Amino acid sequence: MKVFVVGANGKVAQHFADFVKEDEVIEEIAMIRDPKQADFFEERGIETVLLDLVKNSIDDIAEAMKDADAVVFSAGAGGAGDDQTVLIDLDGAIKAMTAAEQAGIKRFVMVSTFRTGREEMSKDNDLQIYTIAKNYADEWLKNRTALDWTIVHPGILVDTQGTDQIKTGMGQEIAEIPRQDVAKTLISVLNNDNTIKKEFEILGGDQTIEEAINNL
Amino acid sequence: MKVFVVGANGKVAQHFADFVKEDEVIEEIAMIRDPKQADFFEERGIETVLLDLVKNSIDDIAEAMKDADAVVFSAGAGGAGDDQTVLIDLDGAIKAMTAAEQAGIKRFVMVSTFRTGREEMSKDNDLQIYTIAKNYADEWLKNRTALDWTIVHPGILVDTQGTDQIKTGMGQEIAEIPRQDVAKTLISVLNNDNTIKKEFEILGGDQTIEEAINNL
Repeated sequence: MKVFVVGANGKVAQHFADFVKEDEVIEEIAMIRDPKQADFFEERGIETVLLDLVKNSIDDIAEAMKDADAVVFSAGAGGAGDDQTVLIDLDGAIKAMTAAEQAGIKRFVMVSTFRTGREEMSKDNDLQIYTIAKNYADEWLKNRTALDWTIVHPGILVDTQGTDQIKTGMGQEIAEIPRQDVAKTLISVLNNDNTIKKEFEILGGDQTIEEAINNL
Repeated sequence: MKVFVVGANGKVAQHFADFVKEDEVIEEIAMIRDPKQADFFEERGIETVLLDLVKNSIDDIAEAMKDADAVVFSAGAGGAGDDQTVLIDLDGAIKAMTAAEQAGIKRFVMVSTFRTGREEMSKDNDLQIYTIAKNYADEWLKNRTALDWTIVHPGILVDTQGTDQIKTGMGQEIAEIPRQDVAKTLISVLNNDNTIKKEFEILGGDQTIEEAINNL
């Protein structure tokens, strides 16, 4: 399965590339914005395409996706300002969904934020604009596309070593999860069609990722 | 017909209040954020409700709307920053739509921007975030509600005296339109059910507003 990763150079997605290198089923096409980012992927035998989610058109992105079987959306403005949040986390996500449909791809895995929904969107905090952007991107994916989506809502991302132990659910108390375990969960999601049309939170827990995803 | 106006103190909506005062069919409930804004409406015999589109809940807004037959959405962040654009023009609009549905109101008239859609959203200019916010609010209204919507896309708003002469259409070259004529068009839209499930641009033109709206 060829997986087109939007936001391939992000921290979660770099761990994803490491798992792809070891995986027998999944290959990756890494969408990157800066040619300097290519080495990391080439070292792992991963093809790169140079595209800018904001500046390139849906047609450009669809063309780059044409050999892929699935899309993982792991891009994010990450504190670059509210304008970038709107351009990347909201509109960029919707552009990627539209491109996937245009390219005839069915499978779309979204890395969302831990909690969306009205209560969270109403909180006057530093993450409010980000939460709203992610919420409406998720809403679009679920309600305005015919994609086989999965939405993963990770807890607080940390850079500690992955444990391969998670728990899934919805409405859980927030807790940490290593980025490496999020990446491994994405691999497992792609390998398990029982995750189609499902969304779930992931936190550090006591089930192996394989077990947790199989039992969703 | 009782019309609940979100963003009642805005420039277009203030002209709207003047027309309401003369209209035999339309009454207004003006949603305002600052008690100091109430005098303007009381002088015109218009009821006010004090609510904040960002801070108040959908339940609060729905409760205030409960005696209304229609909603006009004319709020806008108006250059107060990208965060306010997301909170008011996108999420605030969707909150107002949800509140209207919750209150059992069918009719919803949106004052949009001149041009939305992918081409306009992709333009890297000062209005890009605003255009994206308005676009997705319009999309929600059309595709995610069961409201009897009308979307009005005015050209460049100016404060010159209204002429009562407009032209309607889609994909027109942008031109000016007095705010007073936009307000009068909203009155005409509310009085004409043939505008339901339609969206159109309005610019200065050579048809009377009544004629232009009747012939949509």
